[in-house]
Amino acid sequence: MLVVLDLVGIFVFGITGALVGVRKQLDVFGIQVLALVTGLGGGFLRDVLIGATPPAALADWRYLVVPVVAGLLTFFLHPGIGRLERLVNVFDAAGLALFCVTGARKALDSGLSPLSAALLGMISGIGGGVIRDVLSGRVPVVLRSEIYAIPAFLGAGIVVLADVAGFQATWPTFAGAVVCFLIRLIAIRRGWNAPLPRPS
Amino acid sequence: MLVVLDLVGIFVFGITGALVGVRKQLDVFGIQVLALVTGLGGGFLRDVLIGATPPAALADWRYLVVPVVAGLLTFFLHPGIGRLERLVNVFDAAGLALFCVTGARKALDSGLSPLSAALLGMISGIGGGVIRDVLSGRVPVVLRSEIYAIPAFLGAGIVVLADVAGFQATWPTFAGAVVCFLIRLIAIRRGWNAPLPRPS
Amino acid sequence: MLVVLDLVGIFVFGITGALVGVRKQLDVFGIQVLALVTGLGGGFLRDVLIGATPPAALADWRYLVVPVVAGLLTFFLHPGIGRLERLVNVFDAAGLALFCVTGARKALDSGLSPLSAALLGMISGIGGGVIRDVLSGRVPVVLRSEIYAIPAFLGAGIVVLADVAGFQATWPTFAGAVVCFLIRLIAIRRGWNAPLPRPS
Repeated sequence: MLVVLDLVGIFVFGITGALVGVRKQLDVFGIQVLALVTGLGGGFLRDVLIGATPPAALADWRYLVVPVVAGLLTFFLHPGIGRLERLVNVFDAAGLALFCVTGARKALDSGLSPLSAALLGMISGIGGGVIRDVLSGRVPVVLRSEIYAIPAFLGAGIVVLADVAGFQATWPTFAGAVVCFLIRLIAIRRGWNAPLPRPS
Repeated sequence: MLVVLDLVGIFVFGITGALVGVRKQLDVFGIQVLALVTGLGGGFLRDVLIGATPPAALADWRYLVVPVVAGLLTFFLHPGIGRLERLVNVFDAAGLALFCVTGARKALDSGLSPLSAALLGMISGIGGGVIRDVLSGRVPVVLRSEIYAIPAFLGAGIVVLADVAGFQATWPTFAGAVVCFLIRLIAIRRGWNAPLPRPS
Repeated sequence: MLVVLDLVGIFVFGITGALVGVRKQLDVFGIQVLALVTGLGGGFLRDVLIGATPPAALADWRYLVVPVVAGLLTFFLHPGIGRLERLVNVFDAAGLALFCVTGARKALDSGLSPLSAALLGMISGIGGGVIRDVLSGRVPVVLRSEIYAIPAFLGAGIVVLADVAGFQATWPTFAGAVVCFLIRLIAIRRGWNAPLPRPS
């Protein structure tokens, strides 16, 4: 089940990368590269940090096919430029939700402490988007004035707490993903902003 | 002792990350993220490169609390915008000095050759700042026309040479950090610049 | 032989990094840093992803001397600014060709599947240039409208297929490098562009 969630996460993140590429008017290969790094970046980061090398994405061909398919679909079927940014945000929220829970799970399985597992879940969630934005010259969404890292940390935290409490893994995983996804979407819709530093 | 120096380095680097975030008018979470990646980035890079995974920062909760505290303190207590850049430079120099020596030590302990250990010390020193600047869209300080990588390499070199010469670790570590810190500060104060390529 | 190809690749990539540094009017140390990260970045990425840590570049002093020499030579002997970009492209193509084949070889030796090995070859090929461009604030060449990742993937693919077919390693390695290099150069010369997404 973890693999399925991982692949879905890679797919949606791959779509966001490709949409950003379309927005920047990159060619089909540049779009593919952005789809690949966005889809696989977070997982690479996660696996390298817990020492699970080579990363799953390099050991399993499905992990390579999925972002390529996501990139090609986006290249041919992408909507008008106007709706791109909103779509990026929705798919990005989905990827964030899926990766923060799978990342937390993988971290727990590899024996990290609860706090570390939650942080690693957050890192796997935000990693792909950060790489996508840095490569394409955007201010990383995680730094822009939006609730982004927090929902990922909460989603991962739910998985970790349920594990500490000895619950069976399935439902907490879904709960964590749903919570992260909804908070993130509501934050975007409502335009929730976190407090700014006092003017100086 | 190594852990203490490491934590102090993470703290000061975390402050620089948060100050840059304040400067960019990021919200409290964006500032936290910058504090985390700046504080932990160099160490992650170091531990991943020597294969010491999961990085100490993921295995020990203190490594996570320190940058968060640094970020919150900076968020609430940061000074006027005018003095920010100078403060960034001073704390950055301190983090550079601490990480280059702890990085060199850790590299030696993990059996790297002297030259490699000095380079890894330099990498751990400059890593956090590079990640901070790339994420926040600044030209990495290490590339700007300033003496930056050199003091880190010298500081790390002192630790390595003392180790090769069979000295006991404590004093060379402090000496390396002090030398790196002072050279860096003097370079900033005096506006030392390295030679530029011939105009062409 | 692999080591020699690797060192030549590091040398030419180091030159591209230094040339970009000259172009950006960085000082001698900034240029050295760019030469180092560009020359060693792809290999670090490759070795970290296959878990071969510490990377060869940290275990073998020659890997450190080569990019430094490349940087110094470039600093003193670089041509007029006008011809810089073309030179960057040519050396970059050579580095791309050498790293994609050595990366694929190393991946095969470490037991990765054929598809993964080809991808890792591509990653090692494009990694150094991506790091160089991100640090120096350029749009990564791999995202710009040029045939870049594809020749690297083809070059790596040739090495992988020859290995699958049971050929002896030497000639396919050269063939892969030559194919990648020529396709890349022709693509630049002819200004080949890949299809763009439909306007929207």
